[in-house]
Amino acid sequence: MKKLSEDEIHNKLKDFDGWTYAKGAIHTSFQFENFKEAFTVMTRIAFEAEAQQHHPNWGNVYNQLEISLSTHDADGVTEKDFKLARTIEDIIEATG
Amino acid sequence: MKKLSEDEIHNKLKDFDGWTYAKGAIHTSFQFENFKEAFTVMTRIAFEAEAQQHHPNWGNVYNQLEISLSTHDADGVTEKDFKLARTIEDIIEATG
Repeated sequence: MKKLSEDEIHNKLKDFDGWTYAKGAIHTSFQFENFKEAFTVMTRIAFEAEAQQHHPNWGNVYNQLEISLSTHDADGVTEKDFKLARTIEDIIEATG
Repeated sequence: MKKLSEDEIHNKLKDFDGWTYAKGAIHTSFQFENFKEAFTVMTRIAFEAEAQQHHPNWGNVYNQLEISLSTHDADGVTEKDFKLARTIEDIIEATG
């Protein structure tokens, strides 16, 4: 999987609201009603991440969720990350 | 819920393997076989945390899980954190 250039990443991020690029990864965060809502969304993401065999670097405290995506083997951001980012956005939209 | 003193925290931590105190919270980390195993344990912890109405500050990437516990309202560590820490240890033991 080919590492994307910064230009390619910034160009692709135009299609994603609330995502940023920094330190070799793309990042976003969400705020939910409460912990239960946050963990419900995390569970949906977990299943899709496992199916894609590509996993997020994520942190949660109560109703907040922070997600960073990068591709370890490529030492940067690849199409795999954008695929998972789109999946995450779809899950958020479906549950919103 | 009363904030525990540093002495009280260090004393209680003697009963916990692999937990440390730093920056107003108690911390531990675990490593699992893979993402699925890590998220399975996270899900079990999530249910108990919700039942205790006390939630972890946690981060996961692939098979690694980092957990910090503190009590926001007390601005430090309380008995609530040690209760949840014990629950987490019990879950780890049951799944290990």
